[in-house]
Amino acid sequence: MRLRNKPWADDYMRENDHVVVQKPFEAKGDWKSLFDNKDNPLHLEIGSGKGQFIAGMGKQHEDINFVGIERVKSVIVGAVKKVLDAGTSNVRLVNEDAEDLRDLFESNEVDHLYLNFSDPWPKNRHEKRRLTFRTFLEQYEEVLVPGGEITLKTDNRGLFEYSLMSFSQYGMLIEDVSVDLHADEDPLNVPTEYEEKFAAKGQPIYRCRVRFRT
Amino acid sequence: MRLRNKPWADDYMRENDHVVVQKPFEAKGDWKSLFDNKDNPLHLEIGSGKGQFIAGMGKQHEDINFVGIERVKSVIVGAVKKVLDAGTSNVRLVNEDAEDLRDLFESNEVDHLYLNFSDPWPKNRHEKRRLTFRTFLEQYEEVLVPGGEITLKTDNRGLFEYSLMSFSQYGMLIEDVSVDLHADEDPLNVPTEYEEKFAAKGQPIYRCRVRFRT
Ligand SMILES: C[S@@+](CC[C@H](N)C(=O)[O-])C[C@H]1O[C@@H](n2cnc3c(N)ncnc32)[C@H](O)[C@@H]1O
Ligand SMILES: C[S@@+](CC[C@H](N)C(=O)[O-])C[C@H]1O[C@@H](n2cnc3c(N)ncnc32)[C@H](O)[C@@H]1O
Repeated sequence: MRLRNKPWADDYMRENDHVVVQKPFEAKGDWKSLFDNKDNPLHLEIGSGKGQFIAGMGKQHEDINFVGIERVKSVIVGAVKKVLDAGTSNVRLVNEDAEDLRDLFESNEVDHLYLNFSDPWPKNRHEKRRLTFRTFLEQYEEVLVPGGEITLKTDNRGLFEYSLMSFSQYGMLIEDVSVDLHADEDPLNVPTEYEEKFAAKGQPIYRCRVRFRT
Repeated sequence: MRLRNKPWADDYMRENDHVVVQKPFEAKGDWKSLFDNKDNPLHLEIGSGKGQFIAGMGKQHEDINFVGIERVKSVIVGAVKKVLDAGTSNVRLVNEDAEDLRDLFESNEVDHLYLNFSDPWPKNRHEKRRLTFRTFLEQYEEVLVPGGEITLKTDNRGLFEYSLMSFSQYGMLIEDVSVDLHADEDPLNVPTEYEEKFAAKGQPIYRCRVRFRT
Protein backbone atom coordinates (compact mmCIF):
# COMPACT_ATOMS: atom_id res chain seq x y z
CA MET A 1 0.00 0.00 0.00
CA ARG A 2 1.82 3.13 -1.21
CA LEU A 3 0.11 5.98 0.53
CA ARG A 4 1.96 8.66 -1.40
CA ASN A 5 0.05 7.37 -4.38
CA LYS A 6 -2.54 10.12 -4.35
CA PRO A 7 -5.13 8.56 -6.67
CA TRP A 8 -5.48 5.63 -4.28
CA ALA A 9 -5.98 7.90 -1.29
CA ASP A 10 -8.44 10.10 -3.19
CA ASP A 11 -10.53 7.08 -4.13
CA TYR A 12 -10.45 5.79 -0.56
CA MET A 13 -11.64 9.12 0.83
CA ARG A 14 -14.40 9.42 -1.75
CA GLU A 15 -15.63 5.90 -1.04
CA ASN A 16 -15.88 6.76 2.64
CA ASP A 17 -17.83 9.97 2.29
CA HIS A 18 -19.83 9.14 5.44
CA VAL A 19 -16.55 9.75 7.31
CA VAL A 20 -14.63 12.18 5.10
CA VAL A 21 -16.49 15.41 4.46
CA GLN A 22 -16.14 16.01 0.72
CA LYS A 23 -16.98 19.73 0.59
CA PRO A 24 -16.12 21.00 4.06
CA PHE A 25 -16.28 24.72 3.22
CA GLU A 26 -19.94 24.26 2.27
CA ALA A 27 -20.63 22.83 5.72
CA LYS A 28 -19.82 26.16 7.38
CA GLY A 29 -22.66 27.09 9.70
CA ASP A 30 -24.31 23.72 9.22
CA TRP A 31 -21.94 21.12 10.67
CA LYS A 32 -24.60 19.73 12.99
CA SER A 33 -26.63 18.53 9.98
CA LEU A 34 -23.80 16.13 9.06
CA PHE A 35 -24.40 14.06 12.19
CA ASP A 36 -27.14 11.68 13.29
CA ASN A 37 -27.72 13.52 16.52
CA LYS A 38 -27.72 17.17 15.57
CA ASP A 39 -28.16 18.47 19.12
CA ASN A 40 -24.92 17.05 20.43
CA PRO A 41 -21.98 19.34 21.09
CA LEU A 42 -19.33 19.65 18.39
CA HIS A 43 -15.68 19.02 19.28
CA LEU A 44 -12.89 19.82 16.85
CA GLU A 45 -9.32 18.53 16.58
CA ILE A 46 -6.68 20.26 14.46
CA GLY A 47 -3.93 18.01 13.09
CA SER A 48 -5.55 14.64 13.77
CA GLY A 49 -2.68 12.66 12.25
CA LYS A 50 -3.51 8.96 12.02
CA GLY A 51 -6.66 9.44 14.07
CA GLN A 52 -6.14 7.34 17.17
CA PHE A 53 -7.34 10.18 19.40
CA ILE A 54 -10.43 11.19 17.49
CA ALA A 55 -11.52 7.60 16.83
CA GLY A 56 -11.02 6.74 20.50
CA MET A 57 -12.81 9.87 21.70
CA GLY A 58 -15.71 9.17 19.30
CA LYS A 59 -16.11 5.76 20.84
CA GLN A 60 -15.75 7.01 24.43
CA HIS A 61 -18.19 9.91 24.03
CA GLU A 62 -21.13 8.87 21.89
CA ASP A 63 -22.99 12.00 22.98
CA ILE A 64 -20.47 14.31 21.33
CA ASN A 65 -19.90 14.92 17.60
CA PHE A 66 -16.27 15.10 16.50
CA VAL A 67 -14.56 16.73 13.54
CA GLY A 68 -10.87 16.12 12.83
CA ILE A 69 -8.85 18.23 10.41
CA GLU A 70 -5.63 16.87 8.92
CA ARG A 71 -3.93 18.40 5.93
CA VAL A 72 -1.69 15.50 4.85
CA LYS A 73 -3.54 13.07 2.63
CA SER A 74 -1.20 10.14 3.20
CA VAL A 75 -1.74 10.59 6.94
CA ILE A 76 -5.48 11.19 7.09
CA VAL A 77 -6.26 7.92 5.27
CA GLY A 78 -4.93 6.20 8.38
CA ALA A 79 -7.45 8.18 10.41
CA VAL A 80 -10.27 7.15 8.10
CA LYS A 81 -9.39 3.51 8.69
CA LYS A 82 -9.25 4.04 12.50
CA VAL A 83 -12.69 5.64 12.49
CA LEU A 84 -14.13 2.83 10.37
CA ASP A 85 -12.56 0.21 12.65
CA ALA A 86 -13.96 1.96 15.73
CA GLY A 87 -17.40 1.54 14.20
CA THR A 88 -18.62 4.82 15.59
CA SER A 89 -20.81 7.18 13.59
CA ASN A 90 -20.08 10.47 15.36
CA VAL A 91 -16.71 11.33 13.79
CA ARG A 92 -16.10 13.28 10.57
CA LEU A 93 -12.71 13.99 8.99
CA VAL A 94 -11.59 16.89 6.85
CA ASN A 95 -8.55 16.84 4.58
CA GLU A 96 -7.73 20.54 4.58
CA ASP A 97 -5.22 22.97 5.95
CA ALA A 98 -6.73 24.58 9.04
CA GLU A 99 -5.22 27.89 8.08
CA ASP A 100 -8.23 29.95 9.04
CA LEU A 101 -10.95 28.12 10.93
CA ARG A 102 -13.35 30.97 10.17
CA ASP A 103 -13.54 29.71 6.59
CA LEU A 104 -14.84 26.36 7.87
CA PHE A 105 -16.91 27.30 10.91
CA GLU A 106 -19.42 29.97 11.75
CA SER A 107 -19.08 31.98 14.98
CA ASN A 108 -20.02 29.91 18.07
CA GLU A 109 -20.26 26.71 16.04
CA VAL A 110 -17.64 24.70 17.97
CA ASP A 111 -17.91 23.67 21.63
CA HIS A 112 -14.40 22.43 22.32
CA LEU A 113 -11.06 22.44 20.51
CA TYR A 114 -8.22 19.91 20.80
CA LEU A 115 -4.63 20.62 19.85
CA ASN A 116 -2.65 17.40 20.12
CA PHE A 117 1.11 17.36 19.64
CA SER A 118 0.98 20.28 17.26
CA ASP A 119 4.12 21.11 15.33
CA PRO A 120 6.31 23.04 17.83
CA TRP A 121 8.00 25.51 15.44
CA PRO A 122 10.83 26.07 17.92
CA LYS A 123 12.56 28.93 16.11
CA ASN A 124 11.60 32.41 17.30
CA ARG A 125 11.04 33.59 13.74
CA HIS A 126 8.41 30.86 13.29
CA GLU A 127 6.41 31.91 16.35
CA LYS A 128 3.49 32.98 14.14
CA ARG A 129 3.07 29.42 12.86
CA ARG A 130 2.52 27.90 16.29
CA LEU A 131 -1.15 26.95 16.66
CA THR A 132 -1.26 28.86 19.96
CA PHE A 133 0.01 32.15 18.53
CA ARG A 134 -2.29 35.09 19.16
CA THR A 135 -3.76 35.19 15.66
CA PHE A 136 -4.85 31.55 16.00
CA LEU A 137 -6.39 32.28 19.41
CA GLU A 138 -8.43 35.03 17.73
CA GLN A 139 -9.80 32.47 15.26
CA TYR A 140 -10.53 29.95 17.98
CA GLU A 141 -12.32 32.53 20.08
CA GLU A 142 -14.57 33.34 17.15
CA VAL A 143 -15.57 29.82 16.12
CA LEU A 144 -15.90 28.59 19.71
CA VAL A 145 -19.00 29.20 21.81
CA PRO A 146 -18.66 31.92 24.47
CA GLY A 147 -16.52 30.52 27.27
CA GLY A 148 -15.31 27.80 24.90
CA GLU A 149 -12.42 25.60 25.92
CA ILE A 150 -9.20 24.35 24.36
CA THR A 151 -7.39 21.21 25.49
CA LEU A 152 -3.75 21.03 24.48
CA LYS A 153 -1.44 18.03 24.84
CA THR A 154 2.19 17.92 23.87
CA ASP A 155 5.53 16.34 24.64
CA ASN A 156 7.25 19.53 23.57
CA ARG A 157 8.41 21.59 26.51
CA GLY A 158 8.96 24.76 24.52
CA LEU A 159 5.55 24.66 22.88
CA PHE A 160 3.87 23.95 26.20
CA GLU A 161 5.58 26.80 28.02
CA TYR A 162 4.95 29.17 25.13
CA SER A 163 1.29 28.16 24.94
CA LEU A 164 0.66 28.77 28.65
CA MET A 165 2.13 32.25 28.31
CA SER A 166 0.21 32.94 25.09
CA PHE A 167 -3.09 31.81 26.61
CA SER A 168 -2.45 33.93 29.70
CA GLN A 169 -1.39 36.95 27.66
CA TYR A 170 -4.63 36.63 25.70
CA GLY A 171 -6.54 36.79 28.99
CA MET A 172 -7.64 33.15 28.98
CA LEU A 173 -8.29 31.18 32.14
CA ILE A 174 -6.13 28.14 32.89
CA GLU A 175 -8.61 25.59 34.20
CA ASP A 176 -6.40 22.54 34.41
CA VAL A 177 -2.69 21.78 34.03
CA SER A 178 -0.67 18.60 34.17
CA VAL A 179 3.08 18.62 33.74
CA ASP A 180 3.20 14.81 33.79
CA LEU A 181 -0.07 13.48 32.46
CA HIS A 182 0.90 9.84 32.55
CA ALA A 183 1.89 10.04 36.21
CA ASP A 184 -1.68 11.21 36.89
CA GLU A 185 -3.15 8.07 35.31
CA ASP A 186 -6.31 9.77 34.06
CA PRO A 187 -8.52 6.78 33.14
CA LEU A 188 -10.39 8.87 30.54
CA ASN A 189 -7.28 10.04 28.72
CA VAL A 190 -7.22 8.86 25.09
CA PRO A 191 -3.58 8.81 23.96
CA THR A 192 -2.59 9.94 20.47
CA GLU A 193 0.03 8.16 18.34
CA TYR A 194 2.68 10.71 19.25
CA GLU A 195 1.72 10.53 22.90
CA GLU A 196 2.24 6.76 23.03
CA LYS A 197 5.58 7.07 21.31
CA PHE A 198 6.97 9.76 23.61
CA ALA A 199 5.47 8.33 26.79
CA ALA A 200 7.07 4.97 25.98
CA LYS A 201 10.44 6.75 25.92
CA GLY A 202 9.72 7.97 29.44
CA GLN A 203 9.21 11.58 28.41
CA PRO A 204 6.64 13.63 30.33
CA ILE A 205 3.43 14.51 28.51
CA TYR A 206 2.06 18.00 29.21
CA ARG A 207 -1.61 18.94 29.10
CA CYS A 208 -3.66 21.99 29.83
CA ARG A 209 -7.30 22.97 29.50
CA VAL A 210 -7.99 26.66 29.04
CA ARG A 211 -11.08 28.78 28.53
CA PHE A 212 -11.83 32.08 26.87
CA ARG A 213 -13.17 34.52 29.42
CA THR A 214 -16.61 35.84 28.63
CA MET B 1 26.10 22.32 67.90
CA ARG B 2 22.55 21.51 68.98
CA LEU B 3 20.38 23.91 67.01
CA ARG B 4 17.24 22.97 68.86
CA ASN B 5 18.91 24.59 71.83
CA LYS B 6 17.01 27.83 71.55
CA PRO B 7 19.11 30.02 73.83
CA TRP B 8 22.11 29.48 71.57
CA ALA B 9 20.17 30.44 68.45
CA ASP B 10 18.63 33.47 70.18
CA ASP B 11 22.04 34.75 71.20
CA TYR B 12 23.41 34.18 67.70
CA MET B 13 20.54 36.13 66.11
CA ARG B 14 20.88 39.00 68.61
CA GLU B 15 24.61 39.23 68.03
CA ASN B 16 23.98 39.54 64.31
CA ASP B 17 21.36 42.26 64.44
CA HIS B 18 22.81 43.85 61.26
CA VAL B 19 21.44 40.76 59.46
CA VAL B 20 18.52 39.62 61.62
CA VAL B 21 15.86 42.30 62.06
CA GLN B 22 15.06 42.26 65.78
CA LYS B 23 11.70 44.05 65.71
CA PRO B 24 10.36 43.38 62.23
CA PHE B 25 6.78 44.55 62.91
CA GLU B 26 8.14 47.99 63.74
CA ALA B 27 9.81 48.13 60.34
CA LYS B 28 6.44 48.14 58.58
CA GLY B 29 6.36 51.01 56.09
CA ASP B 30 10.03 51.77 56.70
CA TRP B 31 11.98 48.75 55.45
CA LYS B 32 14.07 50.86 53.13
CA SER B 33 15.65 52.63 56.08
CA LEU B 34 17.22 49.34 57.21
CA PHE B 35 19.47 49.25 54.15
CA ASP B 36 22.52 51.25 53.09
CA ASN B 37 20.99 52.15 49.75
CA LYS B 38 17.42 53.12 50.54
CA ASP B 39 16.42 53.73 46.92
CA ASN B 40 17.00 50.17 45.77
CA PRO B 41 14.04 47.89 45.11
CA LEU B 42 12.97 45.52 47.87
CA HIS B 43 12.66 41.80 47.12
CA LEU B 44 11.09 39.42 49.62
CA GLU B 45 11.43 35.65 50.05
CA ILE B 46 9.01 33.63 52.17
CA GLY B 47 10.41 30.46 53.71
CA SER B 48 14.10 31.13 53.15
CA GLY B 49 15.22 27.91 54.83
CA LYS B 50 19.00 27.77 55.23
CA GLY B 51 19.44 30.85 53.06
CA GLN B 52 21.43 29.67 50.05
CA PHE B 53 19.07 31.47 47.66
CA ILE B 54 18.82 34.80 49.44
CA ALA B 55 22.55 34.95 50.20
CA GLY B 56 23.37 34.10 46.58
CA MET B 57 20.86 36.59 45.21
CA GLY B 58 22.20 39.30 47.53
CA LYS B 59 25.67 38.76 46.13
CA GLN B 60 24.47 38.57 42.51
CA HIS B 61 22.29 41.69 42.71
CA GLU B 62 23.98 44.36 44.81
CA ASP B 63 21.47 46.92 43.51
CA ILE B 64 18.53 45.13 45.14
CA ASN B 65 17.67 44.89 48.85
CA PHE B 66 16.51 41.48 50.04
CA VAL B 67 14.40 40.37 53.00
CA GLY B 68 14.02 36.69 53.85
CA ILE B 69 11.38 35.37 56.24
CA GLU B 70 11.81 31.99 57.90
CA ARG B 71 9.79 30.85 60.88
CA VAL B 72 11.97 28.00 62.14
CA LYS B 73 14.71 29.25 64.41
CA SER B 74 16.96 26.22 64.04
CA VAL B 75 16.80 26.69 60.26
CA ILE B 76 17.20 30.46 59.99
CA VAL B 77 20.47 30.44 61.91
CA GLY B 78 21.90 28.59 58.90
CA ALA B 79 20.72 31.44 56.71
CA VAL B 80 22.37 34.00 59.00
CA LYS B 81 25.65 32.18 58.57
CA LYS B 82 25.26 32.03 54.78
CA VAL B 83 24.60 35.77 54.60
CA LEU B 84 27.61 36.52 56.80
CA ASP B 85 29.80 34.23 54.68
CA ALA B 86 28.57 35.90 51.47
CA GLY B 87 29.85 39.20 52.92
CA THR B 88 27.03 41.16 51.34
CA SER B 89 25.23 43.97 53.16
CA ASN B 90 21.92 44.02 51.27
CA VAL B 91 20.18 41.04 52.92
CA ARG B 92 18.02 41.09 56.05
CA LEU B 93 16.41 38.08 57.71
CA VAL B 94 13.25 37.85 59.77
CA ASN B 95 12.44 34.99 62.14
CA GLU B 96 8.67 35.14 62.00
CA ASP B 97 5.71 33.28 60.61
CA ALA B 98 4.66 35.03 57.38
CA GLU B 99 1.04 34.45 58.27
CA ASP B 100 -0.13 37.84 57.13
CA LEU B 101 2.39 39.93 55.22
CA ARG B 102 0.22 43.00 55.79
CA ASP B 103 1.38 43.00 59.41
CA LEU B 104 4.98 43.34 58.25
CA PHE B 105 4.71 45.47 55.11
CA GLU B 106 2.82 48.56 54.05
CA SER B 107 0.90 48.58 50.76
CA ASN B 108 3.22 48.81 47.72
CA GLU B 109 6.32 48.32 49.88
CA VAL B 110 7.65 45.21 48.13
CA ASP B 111 8.84 45.04 44.51
CA HIS B 112 9.14 41.29 43.98
CA LEU B 113 8.23 38.16 45.91
CA TYR B 114 9.96 34.75 45.82
CA LEU B 115 8.31 31.51 46.85
CA ASN B 116 10.92 28.76 46.77
CA PHE B 117 9.98 25.14 47.39
CA SER B 118 7.13 26.11 49.64
CA ASP B 119 5.44 23.37 51.64
CA PRO B 120 3.11 21.67 49.12
CA TRP B 121 0.21 20.76 51.46
CA PRO B 122 -0.99 18.08 49.04
CA LYS B 123 -4.25 17.21 50.76
CA ASN B 124 -7.32 18.98 49.42
CA ARG B 125 -8.45 19.94 52.89
CA HIS B 126 -5.15 21.83 53.37
CA GLU B 127 -5.52 23.89 50.21
CA LYS B 128 -5.88 27.08 52.27
CA ARG B 129 -2.41 26.62 53.69
CA ARG B 130 -0.67 26.63 50.32
CA LEU B 131 1.20 29.90 49.87
CA THR B 132 -0.50 30.36 46.48
CA PHE B 133 -4.05 30.04 47.81
CA ARG B 134 -6.28 32.99 46.97
CA THR B 135 -6.11 34.58 50.42
CA PHE B 136 -2.31 34.68 50.21
CA LEU B 137 -2.50 36.21 46.73
CA GLU B 138 -4.69 38.95 48.22
CA GLN B 139 -1.96 39.73 50.75
CA TYR B 140 0.77 39.67 48.12
CA GLU B 141 -1.19 41.97 45.85
CA GLU B 142 -1.51 44.47 48.66
CA VAL B 143 2.11 44.59 49.81
CA LEU B 144 3.53 44.44 46.27
CA VAL B 145 3.80 47.50 44.04
CA PRO B 146 1.18 47.75 41.28
CA GLY B 147 2.09 45.20 38.61
CA GLY B 148 4.32 43.45 41.15
CA GLU B 149 5.71 40.04 40.32
CA ILE B 150 6.04 36.68 42.03
CA THR B 151 8.65 34.08 41.11
CA LEU B 152 7.85 30.56 42.24
CA LYS B 153 10.18 27.57 42.08
CA THR B 154 9.32 24.07 43.18
CA ASP B 155 10.01 20.41 42.57
CA ASN B 156 6.44 19.61 43.56
CA ARG B 157 4.25 18.89 40.57
CA GLY B 158 0.98 19.24 42.43
CA LEU B 159 1.91 22.58 43.97
CA PHE B 160 3.14 23.88 40.62
CA GLU B 161 0.00 22.88 38.74
CA TYR B 162 -2.21 24.22 41.51
CA SER B 163 -0.31 27.50 41.62
CA LEU B 164 -0.61 28.12 37.87
CA MET B 165 -4.36 27.59 38.12
CA SER B 166 -4.65 29.75 41.22
CA PHE B 167 -2.65 32.60 39.65
CA SER B 168 -4.76 32.40 36.49
CA GLN B 169 -8.01 32.22 38.44
CA TYR B 170 -6.93 35.36 40.31
CA GLY B 171 -6.47 37.10 36.95
CA MET B 172 -2.68 37.24 37.09
CA LEU B 173 -0.51 37.23 33.98
CA ILE B 174 1.90 34.33 33.45
CA GLU B 175 5.03 36.02 32.17
CA ASP B 176 7.40 33.09 32.16
CA VAL B 177 7.18 29.33 32.70
CA SER B 178 9.74 26.56 32.76
CA VAL B 179 8.75 22.95 33.31
CA ASP B 180 12.39 21.86 33.43
CA LEU B 181 14.47 24.74 34.70
CA HIS B 182 17.74 22.87 34.81
CA ALA B 183 17.43 21.81 31.17
CA ASP B 184 17.24 25.52 30.32
CA GLU B 185 20.59 26.21 31.99
CA ASP B 186 19.72 29.74 33.08
CA PRO B 187 23.13 31.16 34.07
CA LEU B 188 21.52 33.61 36.52
CA ASN B 189 19.51 30.97 38.37
CA VAL B 190 20.52 30.78 42.05
CA PRO B 191 19.59 27.30 43.30
CA THR B 192 18.12 26.78 46.76
CA GLU B 193 19.09 23.89 49.04
CA TYR B 194 15.98 21.93 48.12
CA GLU B 195 16.52 22.66 44.44
CA GLU B 196 20.04 21.21 44.51
CA LYS B 197 18.82 18.13 46.32
CA PHE B 198 15.94 17.37 43.92
CA ALA B 199 17.82 18.31 40.77
CA ALA B 200 20.64 15.94 41.79
CA LYS B 201 18.04 13.14 41.87
CA GLY B 202 17.16 13.99 38.27
CA GLN B 203 13.77 15.46 39.13
CA PRO B 204 12.53 18.39 37.05
CA ILE B 205 12.44 21.80 38.72
CA TYR B 206 9.45 23.97 37.83
CA ARG B 207 9.49 27.77 37.78
CA CYS B 208 7.09 30.50 36.84
CA ARG B 209 7.07 34.28 37.03
CA VAL B 210 3.66 35.91 37.30
CA ARG B 211 2.40 39.46 37.61
CA PHE B 212 -0.64 41.11 39.11
CA ARG B 213 -2.57 42.92 36.39
CA THR B 214 -2.96 46.62 37.03
C1 LIG C 1 3.17 16.22 15.09
S1 LIG C 1 1.77 15.59 14.24
C2 LIG C 1 0.71 14.99 15.54
C3 LIG C 1 -0.35 14.06 15.06
C4 LIG C 1 -1.38 13.60 16.10
N1 LIG C 1 -2.14 14.74 16.62
C5 LIG C 1 -0.71 12.87 17.24
O1 LIG C 1 -0.66 13.43 18.33
O2 LIG C 1 -0.26 11.73 17.07
C6 LIG C 1 0.97 17.09 13.74
C7 LIG C 1 -0.06 16.87 12.67
O3 LIG C 1 -0.76 18.07 12.44
C8 LIG C 1 -0.96 18.26 11.06
N2 LIG C 1 -1.12 19.69 10.85
C9 LIG C 1 -0.24 20.64 11.18
N3 LIG C 1 -0.71 21.87 10.84
C10 LIG C 1 -1.94 21.66 10.30
C11 LIG C 1 -2.91 22.54 9.73
N4 LIG C 1 -2.71 23.85 9.67
N5 LIG C 1 -4.05 22.00 9.25
C12 LIG C 1 -4.23 20.65 9.30
N6 LIG C 1 -3.34 19.79 9.82
C13 LIG C 1 -2.21 20.28 10.30
C14 LIG C 1 0.29 17.66 10.44
O4 LIG C 1 0.06 17.29 9.10
C15 LIG C 1 0.53 16.43 11.34
O5 LIG C 1 -0.15 15.28 10.88
C1 LIG D 1 10.41 23.06 52.05
S1 LIG D 1 11.32 24.29 52.84
C2 LIG D 1 12.24 25.10 51.55
C3 LIG D 1 13.39 25.93 52.05
C4 LIG D 1 14.13 26.74 50.98
N1 LIG D 1 13.24 27.76 50.39
C5 LIG D 1 14.70 25.87 49.88
O1 LIG D 1 14.18 25.91 48.77
O2 LIG D 1 15.69 25.14 50.14
C6 LIG D 1 10.08 25.47 53.26
C7 LIG D 1 10.52 26.46 54.32
O3 LIG D 1 9.52 27.47 54.45
C8 LIG D 1 9.36 27.77 55.82
N2 LIG D 1 7.99 28.30 55.96
C9 LIG D 1 6.85 27.67 55.61
N3 LIG D 1 5.79 28.45 55.86
C10 LIG D 1 6.27 29.60 56.39
C11 LIG D 1 5.67 30.79 56.89
N4 LIG D 1 4.33 30.94 56.90
N5 LIG D 1 6.46 31.76 57.36
C12 LIG D 1 7.80 31.60 57.36
N6 LIG D 1 8.43 30.50 56.92
C13 LIG D 1 7.68 29.50 56.45
C14 LIG D 1 9.58 26.43 56.50
O4 LIG D 1 9.95 26.59 57.86
C15 LIG D 1 10.73 25.83 55.68
O5 LIG D 1 11.98 26.21 56.17
